[in-house]
Amino acid sequence: MLTLALNSGSSSIKYRLLRMPEAVTQASGLVEGIGESEGRFTCRRGGENAAPTRSTLPIADHRQGLALIFDSLGDLPENGLAVGHRVVHGGGLFDQAALIDDGVAAKIADLQSLAPLHNPPNLLGIQACRTLWPHVPQVAVFDTAFHHTLPPHAYHYALPRRLSDDRGLRRYGFHGISVQSALKRAAAQLGRQPERLNLIVLHLGNGASVTAVKEGRSVDTSMGMTPLAGLMMGSRCGDIDPGLLLHLLQQGELDARSLEHLLTRQSGFNGVCGDNDVRHILARAGEGDAAAQLALDMYAHQIKKYIGAYWAVLGEVDALVFTGGIGENAGEVRAAALRGLQGLGVDLDPAKNAAACAEPRAIHGEGSRTAVLVIPADEEKEVAEQTYRLVAAASA
Amino acid sequence: MLTLALNSGSSSIKYRLLRMPEAVTQASGLVEGIGESEGRFTCRRGGENAAPTRSTLPIADHRQGLALIFDSLGDLPENGLAVGHRVVHGGGLFDQAALIDDGVAAKIADLQSLAPLHNPPNLLGIQACRTLWPHVPQVAVFDTAFHHTLPPHAYHYALPRRLSDDRGLRRYGFHGISVQSALKRAAAQLGRQPERLNLIVLHLGNGASVTAVKEGRSVDTSMGMTPLAGLMMGSRCGDIDPGLLLHLLQQGELDARSLEHLLTRQSGFNGVCGDNDVRHILARAGEGDAAAQLALDMYAHQIKKYIGAYWAVLGEVDALVFTGGIGENAGEVRAAALRGLQGLGVDLDPAKNAAACAEPRAIHGEGSRTAVLVIPADEEKEVAEQTYRLVAAASA
Repeated sequence: MLTLALNSGSSSIKYRLLRMPEAVTQASGLVEGIGESEGRFTCRRGGENAAPTRSTLPIADHRQGLALIFDSLGDLPENGLAVGHRVVHGGGLFDQAALIDDGVAAKIADLQSLAPLHNPPNLLGIQACRTLWPHVPQVAVFDTAFHHTLPPHAYHYALPRRLSDDRGLRRYGFHGISVQSALKRAAAQLGRQPERLNLIVLHLGNGASVTAVKEGRSVDTSMGMTPLAGLMMGSRCGDIDPGLLLHLLQQGELDARSLEHLLTRQSGFNGVCGDNDVRHILARAGEGDAAAQLALDMYAHQIKKYIGAYWAVLGEVDALVFTGGIGENAGEVRAAALRGLQGLGVDLDPAKNAAACAEPRAIHGEGSRTAVLVIPADEEKEVAEQTYRLVAAASA
Repeated sequence: MLTLALNSGSSSIKYRLLRMPEAVTQASGLVEGIGESEGRFTCRRGGENAAPTRSTLPIADHRQGLALIFDSLGDLPENGLAVGHRVVHGGGLFDQAALIDDGVAAKIADLQSLAPLHNPPNLLGIQACRTLWPHVPQVAVFDTAFHHTLPPHAYHYALPRRLSDDRGLRRYGFHGISVQSALKRAAAQLGRQPERLNLIVLHLGNGASVTAVKEGRSVDTSMGMTPLAGLMMGSRCGDIDPGLLLHLLQQGELDARSLEHLLTRQSGFNGVCGDNDVRHILARAGEGDAAAQLALDMYAHQIKKYIGAYWAVLGEVDALVFTGGIGENAGEVRAAALRGLQGLGVDLDPAKNAAACAEPRAIHGEGSRTAVLVIPADEEKEVAEQTYRLVAAASA
């Protein structure tokens, strides 16, 4: 079976075509800069080491971006094809991946008010594929689903029950596809069963979250009802005193829309040091730039606090798992976040931590009581696997 | 010297008259229910074990409440008298207690926008005493001052610098007077120097906060720019996804004022189970009430996470210190919060934890690597001590 995994973000679309169940990549690529003056399209035909074709062109909207992808894939046989869509918010409606029919599509549309930046592009991808390939099975794979095991004391906010119970204002958590993928690969790396593992998974990318995994299930996670909570991110504020928001509103300078722009676009690394690319920020800090250093110190401090918090929740931790662009590549960030955690039995091997490598690997020292792993994120592969499993089961 | 310590809350005023430096109580009491249909005034003349006089009467405002207190104290000699006022928010302007003159009073008034519920009654108390005793030295003791040692990576939010640097939108922390008092008494209990101690101080009362103390100084704390952040409290929400607030605003049902009412009055224990008295809630949970049990489970989970977070920040912890009404009296809450922390070396002695006692005491088991202490809060004594020290130094 050929499976196309589509991951539509607010201004980008990642895709990968795999032959399943072997998970051999046939084509892959990325549309970026949708809606900006200059868009970019990168595509590879063949495996992951194939030379990419790059083109620069304006890409007005997601429809046009999807058309570029479909064109580059050529004529795919509808028979034996399946499409898997990453969908950010499944709310309380989806605790696992779902075969898409009109009812499922309507529910995803209903959830747009909970994820106004994320669900609409996901839905556009779904609609475009259903139009193009009306007879091809499509699967929605939810970023929230892995967190459906959160216990009530972890998912409830201390709000009136009419809001939490009746209106669904609760913690859902995100990055679940990445955490599921990291859990599997960490288990393979450690030679253990996933359902026996206690992990703290740190997904550090432009978005960032920390998840406590107990015996293979999510028991707490730093993102909340929306992907704005938790760690500071590229341009998102993360955790912040709600009284500060009330103060800004009551001073009368900001309405809800401008407050959202402030907290989602102008905050995080962007707000603290004017840049959201951690590679640049590390370079600036190395040259003595105080704002860049402050942003990195804040980030390390926040990560350290989540590690401690989830350590207390889990009681015992088999491994800390770093994934996502920053988690995989920024050894300096990992080292800063883990500094001073020897009391918890965490001991980093500086040479292993500094080595660049694209494979899953351990970076702790020999005396470390807790493993520290770097696991490259592979959300598209995880989407393809869940899609294949569901479609194969439905047609069996 | 006689020192009157005044602690004006939003609807109450606590006071204590002490002979300093011996700290012998001469009179004490409490005005409650200010502005409500029925107010209460409780006063003791003489030491803490003197029989109280109780009266029930409407108390329209803080002025009237202060008049009751002044009347009950009789004619105090202005010579050799000093008054210490607990002031909740000292912003970035005060890193220690301050002798009040017109300039200091004006600064406290300027800070009202940061603490609209708390600073105005503090200021009323200051004004009333300056009118009554124009020649008596008055001291402002700030709840924020102990946290002036927070490092930048702990006090900064990931916001644009024009807000954090220029507008003072940062973490200040509160309950500092209580934490200072707990630190001194914990050091005495442990036979150690305060400046050598690493503590996690849990002030659990109607307001609640957790503070990480490293070598006698505050290095992180759960309340933020306002006392709304951190743990869930009697009727305050504590930490919550900022995206949830944006969602409520954008749905158009709530404006800033009603959102504040929701988060400060209708949330916390009140929101989750309809009651904010932990004694009632424990009794209800004991009878199988699911909402009460959920509220307690949430509270324990949140406390546990802050303990872990600050453990990671501190690296080594000498003692966990419980204080405040709930922290001192609710052994069930302490036990639930510490359950599963054996991996951190925390081991509670169930009998010691369950014993009722009004004195500072240790409640850990013999094998515990970390001490667990219960330290009754004594904010008025701490206010009196700081007041005495400052006035004695100024007149020396």
